[in-house]
Amino acid sequence: MKAFQDYYPESLSHCYGCGSQNAHGHRIRTFWDAGHPDETVTRYTPEPFHTAVPGFVYGGLLASLIDCHGTGTAAAATYRAEGREMGSEPQLRFVTGALNVSYLKPTPLGPELELRGSVREIKGRKVVVDVTVYAEGVATARGEVIALQMPENFGA
Amino acid sequence: MKAFQDYYPESLSHCYGCGSQNAHGHRIRTFWDAGHPDETVTRYTPEPFHTAVPGFVYGGLLASLIDCHGTGTAAAATYRAEGREMGSEPQLRFVTGALNVSYLKPTPLGPELELRGSVREIKGRKVVVDVTVYAEGVATARGEVIALQMPENFGA
Repeated sequence: MKAFQDYYPESLSHCYGCGSQNAHGHRIRTFWDAGHPDETVTRYTPEPFHTAVPGFVYGGLLASLIDCHGTGTAAAATYRAEGREMGSEPQLRFVTGALNVSYLKPTPLGPELELRGSVREIKGRKVVVDVTVYAEGVATARGEVIALQMPENFGA
Repeated sequence: MKAFQDYYPESLSHCYGCGSQNAHGHRIRTFWDAGHPDETVTRYTPEPFHTAVPGFVYGGLLASLIDCHGTGTAAAATYRAEGREMGSEPQLRFVTGALNVSYLKPTPLGPELELRGSVREIKGRKVVVDVTVYAEGVATARGEVIALQMPENFGA
């Protein structure tokens, strides 16, 4: 099954968090959840060195995962809202305007993590995505991603 | 000159963002700024693979740097507020309760980044730190770190 990130054009597949072309990165893959069709899912197992305090996951990694899960969800949801196949032209790609994370409890290092996302709002070029991180079924962090359609002149 | 992180006890020096013992991590080092004694400074040069869109820094890395800069600043500021030498017993160490980042503009990948922090509030076990990321003197991201004194039973 193709992940959202598999539809990103090659030029936008170098992101450290989700780019399939970044050999050093997390290369997360995000999908619509078959069981909950309005929710998106990413599964990721942190590396042993992704630690904060020994035994627990580094919060900066969780923020990173939430970020890329959020922008991927924003793209998929906007394609869906427009009734278009993901990856069809003109390509939609999002950048992060704001990333807000609350750490609910320490996240154990070892188990696969599950990130679940849902779209709170699509308004013009802005999409707000709510993301929860679960470890062994327990919510350990909550995030909000304010995703913005990448401007044509990004970085210019 | 010793960085804040050099005072962390060995057991708390494994953080992916700031632990001196984490060979895979960022190992950031944070200081009081000599020129602005109420401000803290971290300098960090991202690796070439810390990219979002080619040419620009990955936002998740910026969130990570802001996070560890914030918790380090919280510890240093609390020692100072208590009139104690950093590292003196009982040791103060902070975890992140919330991390809120606004991306103001794309951050160019290449130059050394400067993070500057200041304490907005110390209230009981909570410290709020404002952090700005600069690239070549231009503010590209702003963060707020709600740092909480690590509970004795952390992770139990």
